[in-house]
Amino acid sequence: MSFNQRLQVAIEQQNSLLCIGLDPDVTKLPASLRDDADAVYTFCHEIIAATHDVAVAYKPNIAFFEAMGLVGIETLTRLMQLTRHNIWILDAKRGDIGNTASAYAQAAFTHFNADAITLNPYMGGDTLEPFLRHADRGGFLLCRTSNPGSRDLQELILADGRPLYLAVADLAANQWNTNHNVGLVVGATQPDALKAVRTICPKLPFLLPGIGAQGGDLVQALNAGLDAHRSGLLINVSRSVMYASTDTNYAQAARAEAIRTRDAINQVRHSA
Amino acid sequence: MSFNQRLQVAIEQQNSLLCIGLDPDVTKLPASLRDDADAVYTFCHEIIAATHDVAVAYKPNIAFFEAMGLVGIETLTRLMQLTRHNIWILDAKRGDIGNTASAYAQAAFTHFNADAITLNPYMGGDTLEPFLRHADRGGFLLCRTSNPGSRDLQELILADGRPLYLAVADLAANQWNTNHNVGLVVGATQPDALKAVRTICPKLPFLLPGIGAQGGDLVQALNAGLDAHRSGLLINVSRSVMYASTDTNYAQAARAEAIRTRDAINQVRHSA
Repeated sequence: MSFNQRLQVAIEQQNSLLCIGLDPDVTKLPASLRDDADAVYTFCHEIIAATHDVAVAYKPNIAFFEAMGLVGIETLTRLMQLTRHNIWILDAKRGDIGNTASAYAQAAFTHFNADAITLNPYMGGDTLEPFLRHADRGGFLLCRTSNPGSRDLQELILADGRPLYLAVADLAANQWNTNHNVGLVVGATQPDALKAVRTICPKLPFLLPGIGAQGGDLVQALNAGLDAHRSGLLINVSRSVMYASTDTNYAQAARAEAIRTRDAINQVRHSA
Repeated sequence: MSFNQRLQVAIEQQNSLLCIGLDPDVTKLPASLRDDADAVYTFCHEIIAATHDVAVAYKPNIAFFEAMGLVGIETLTRLMQLTRHNIWILDAKRGDIGNTASAYAQAAFTHFNADAITLNPYMGGDTLEPFLRHADRGGFLLCRTSNPGSRDLQELILADGRPLYLAVADLAANQWNTNHNVGLVVGATQPDALKAVRTICPKLPFLLPGIGAQGGDLVQALNAGLDAHRSGLLINVSRSVMYASTDTNYAQAARAEAIRTRDAINQVRHSA
């Protein structure tokens, strides 16, 4: 089964488009974990235990684990073994030439056993192929991101009148998706851009950061990004779930916020 | 002292533009290391010990170490402590939003103590700033890479008639280099493109992959890329030095090949 099929099955089984970003910031951990030598693992483990039936996917950002040094990589390795009914997207934004990309793919898909990875398309198709040749694993390509600097390159207008990010969407849908395992990262903060990408890519799954802390509007984003089956989206939230409470009840608070977000998504999704 | 100044001083002190890429491939290690439990460390250590007075810089590609799992990160950490008179460029091609980029910068500049890092500019200026705010550390931005897929995005023609990679060069030189620590990655395989980038960026250092295994012509690349002071380039070679011999004399063979390449570069450089 291709990754995009696997993702669709998981979305239906969990009845959820919620993706929880795991970006553990050691300075923001609950005070109750202050004396825990394995605090980041304990914290993420508790969040996952409290939300694994609510979220369809988890998206650990490898940068936050790398910043901890060796222990961070070891922590991430253990966390990614906790559940296998969720889709694990390693947020790594990789992109490099063939033999290097193969090494990154080995790290992501073998060492971490990730179901999917985020990829940067700037170096072109041959740098994506070592990931995408694994049909059962997915690659979410950066298309139109939610940060202010996305305008520097992504919005540059090409000679054919399109902004660069739509050329990326076109390549993704029409050249790089031969194994049915390509997705796109499209920020939730610009519904018009999201709609334009959906028009070019009616069948690709999109990973949407930008809801919550970054200010994206959930209803607008869903209406712009849902596919013809009212699916095909992963709505990522990180801080609003992970730091729903800094008190000892942080896991229960995370669960409540995850349920609230999942249900708010499903209300729009099933209201058509 | 800014990174670009530090690099220039190192180039003059070593009288070398040679950068050795450390891409250890466990399947290519010399047979004599077969029973060495720490073979990748031993191999890279021997290469470094044999070339540290010939190369101005080392460029370990973190992907090859990540692919080894925890032990790879630990190996790279030890290797990057071996010399401090060389410039250490962590080849990681990172690029992510603010707090994530800060975490990557911490991993690169604090954990690994890298002097510079390679960065992917697709997400824009605010994703580069967490690295570039460290004026004594450098960021080499992907501009025009040496792989076939570089044409997919980098050569797309913009409405103003320029290819995308020249817009990146322009932003690098005229917007992002306020701390004098921006460099560019420009493949040696396309001398015309290299010359066009040099015209836009007369003062930035360029890191040139593509000589050797990838077929770039050294003399053409130097003539196209040297700055007004016959400097401002790092010529990267990886496989031709690391795998100069697979026999027990691999370190001596690596040294001989490094000296040959450094001298061939200097002959062109000092012949003007």
